[in-house]
Amino acid sequence: MQIKILVTGGTMDKVYNELTGELTFSASHLGQMLEHSRSTVNIDSEVLFLKDSLDITSEDRDLILSKCIECNEGRVVITHGTDTMVETAKLIGDQVKNKVVVLFGSMIPYSINKSDALFNLGAALSAVQSKVNGVYIAMNGQVFDFDRVEKNKALGIFENI
Amino acid sequence: MQIKILVTGGTMDKVYNELTGELTFSASHLGQMLEHSRSTVNIDSEVLFLKDSLDITSEDRDLILSKCIECNEGRVVITHGTDTMVETAKLIGDQVKNKVVVLFGSMIPYSINKSDALFNLGAALSAVQSKVNGVYIAMNGQVFDFDRVEKNKALGIFENI
Amino acid sequence: MQIKILVTGGTMDKVYNELTGELTFSASHLGQMLEHSRSTVNIDSEVLFLKDSLDITSEDRDLILSKCIECNEGRVVITHGTDTMVETAKLIGDQVKNKVVVLFGSMIPYSINKSDALFNLGAALSAVQSKVNGVYIAMNGQVFDFDRVEKNKALGIFENI
Amino acid sequence: MQIKILVTGGTMDKVYNELTGELTFSASHLGQMLEHSRSTVNIDSEVLFLKDSLDITSEDRDLILSKCIECNEGRVVITHGTDTMVETAKLIGDQVKNKVVVLFGSMIPYSINKSDALFNLGAALSAVQSKVNGVYIAMNGQVFDFDRVEKNKALGIFENI
Repeated sequence: MQIKILVTGGTMDKVYNELTGELTFSASHLGQMLEHSRSTVNIDSEVLFLKDSLDITSEDRDLILSKCIECNEGRVVITHGTDTMVETAKLIGDQVKNKVVVLFGSMIPYSINKSDALFNLGAALSAVQSKVNGVYIAMNGQVFDFDRVEKNKALGIFENI
Repeated sequence: MQIKILVTGGTMDKVYNELTGELTFSASHLGQMLEHSRSTVNIDSEVLFLKDSLDITSEDRDLILSKCIECNEGRVVITHGTDTMVETAKLIGDQVKNKVVVLFGSMIPYSINKSDALFNLGAALSAVQSKVNGVYIAMNGQVFDFDRVEKNKALGIFENI
Repeated sequence: MQIKILVTGGTMDKVYNELTGELTFSASHLGQMLEHSRSTVNIDSEVLFLKDSLDITSEDRDLILSKCIECNEGRVVITHGTDTMVETAKLIGDQVKNKVVVLFGSMIPYSINKSDALFNLGAALSAVQSKVNGVYIAMNGQVFDFDRVEKNKALGIFENI
Repeated sequence: MQIKILVTGGTMDKVYNELTGELTFSASHLGQMLEHSRSTVNIDSEVLFLKDSLDITSEDRDLILSKCIECNEGRVVITHGTDTMVETAKLIGDQVKNKVVVLFGSMIPYSINKSDALFNLGAALSAVQSKVNGVYIAMNGQVFDFDRVEKNKALGIFENI
């Protein structure tokens, strides 16, 4: 069983630029994370773009949706910034009924100590192989249905609604 | 939904003792790992023992089994050394039919760079919430049925049989 | 021999705030770094403030100078952001002739992977114990005289002039 | 000013072998550590061997000594396991009077969390550039004279005698 991973950026992929002192995007960390995790899952990954999810436009979101629909795989994982992850999940959830789609990201960049990125990748990969068709968000150790979840921005966690 | 986590040791919990130069057990890292992963899962954990899985006796294994059976939770995660993880999974799989039980461990200690422990914890927690009743091993990003998996010791990975 | 360490902030002490997505100051990491390094040096440390060195005012700089002059110790280490480290070093170098003073900082925060902070702390502590009276900057593995060094901002390194 | 670094192994270079569960030597980490530390020091390094210092023979020790004597550089850093570091330092200290030689190692491997290796490298590089001719050990943030230091094996620290 092959799994598709669509990369869209988010906090997970941000790195510290020591010349500017800012956190920016340079390249996706997905390959490095899969090696780090000793994954033997059959994966085909594609970087759509690397963006803070607050900067994702409706065109970007349509691109993610079309990639979910068009790919051959029935199981799709999407890396995504947390701030608008629920919005993207809803768009896909309303349109894609015949696949398992799991979105995840991280609150702390993979390149920073105590990052939750690797844990969330494990949860997402496991969920996409275990769940029935539907669209889910894997964060904080939980697997949320796309239409019953929100990000609590004050606490920095995802919660059931 | 509350999840039970039974801790039995394994490579995951080994730490470097700088006075002896050896890797030994000191305490479980589970609490630290759950905090690191920003988990909000409702968990009740219990340390049964901290052992290299090659040192687990049949009495130890019976203890793990009885804890799986007796606990109130219907979903149980077990941390376990990889060398005899399949053996413990088979014992439980033959006897426990009405719960979801997921075993996991790591090839590299949580305290050592590039550890797969956090990734595997994410995969195990996600699987235990997503799978139907049965006994599983979550390693290398895959969720294996207990009776169709073995550890390939030459490669250091779990494989379907 | 007791060594004084004056903490003023800089990149070294910045941490990622997962709620805002920004790098900010929370507390000094000096104690944690000294434990990490297994230092047995007799140290008395004092946090003057935690600031990006671009935000250090002339009053702040005068405070650092007066602390250098007034402390009982003849050997003083100062943690400092790199952008104006040379400016502070010059102020102290022009006024303090009877002590060994070593400034250091880091290009990458201690809390971020591949930080140079611990290396630079080792270099600074070693230099302050080994050099004759004078004011120095310990960065990039070198110990620069305060009046013959500048930061090359394009490369992110300190160089002799 | 060029500095010679002679690599002999020690705890610093040990890595976890996930197939055997043991800490072993694979390759020197010196290049990686110098990049990590953002060092701009002019260095010529040479790997003599990678050994636990308890396994260093008198022939090995003679090799280290001859390399110290024969190299063109007047400043030499030696990476060395801590258990017999003092013994090697004494051999060199008795014979080499016209160079600055600094030995260092680490109590925790560079590849393991909370390693002191990078800190000690910073201290050693700084000391070799700052001290007068002589042989020294840079550990625990201190720079010890070769003939007035011992390792306290119960505490895992170096102390003045």
